[in-house]
Amino acid sequence: MLPVASLEEEFSQITEYFSPRVIAEANGQYFKIAKMKGEFVRHNHENEDEFFYVIKGVFCLRYDDGSEARLSAGQCHVTPRGVWHHPYAPDEAWVMFVEPAETLHTGSVESALSRSVESQTAHLKS
Amino acid sequence: MLPVASLEEEFSQITEYFSPRVIAEANGQYFKIAKMKGEFVRHNHENEDEFFYVIKGVFCLRYDDGSEARLSAGQCHVTPRGVWHHPYAPDEAWVMFVEPAETLHTGSVESALSRSVESQTAHLKS
Repeated sequence: MLPVASLEEEFSQITEYFSPRVIAEANGQYFKIAKMKGEFVRHNHENEDEFFYVIKGVFCLRYDDGSEARLSAGQCHVTPRGVWHHPYAPDEAWVMFVEPAETLHTGSVESALSRSVESQTAHLKS
Repeated sequence: MLPVASLEEEFSQITEYFSPRVIAEANGQYFKIAKMKGEFVRHNHENEDEFFYVIKGVFCLRYDDGSEARLSAGQCHVTPRGVWHHPYAPDEAWVMFVEPAETLHTGSVESALSRSVESQTAHLKS
């Protein structure tokens, strides 16, 4: 029996902001969720696009040209590869995002908020 | 300014069941939505996994081993490559699904419900 995942249940397992949790894999892409609140690290991914879909709250991506993508629940957005983005959430937001399995979520930027791919998938092995 | 898409608005443009509408592309994957109601075509995709996420209603995938994945709103599921699946929705369901851009949504099966990739992306060119 192939598994069915409930996002509500998956989010209930998350205790830390900006710490991605992988909920599915398909075609080399990881489907991840995270609770976001406050400022994340400005970063880019040289070779990988990033798809975002907001489940709850408001999630924003600021770009270097001064533009901002402001996503409410039910809205989606793609940050193209190479483009520097500075994510933040004014209050707690629940976000699903999709990127290649090898993508580092803080891109080329190493930060206290960086989480290894191993930590993002640790619950799948327990 | 990179676009933000509202799923509610995108769904409002759909007038036909089982007719996929591409809402985003990232890393060679198409993010599609469809309204489902009734029986779809049993099919498989030899080389492509398929990710499903239900926005509204109940959407089911029946497998040849007799098992069934029954997804309610907020639930997701992956049909692995090669696996025959028979989708259906007891009542209208709104589904987001993700698959490689080249994937045919009825797989190797040609049916009256088959829609070309061109028809799934026609609104992007208008």
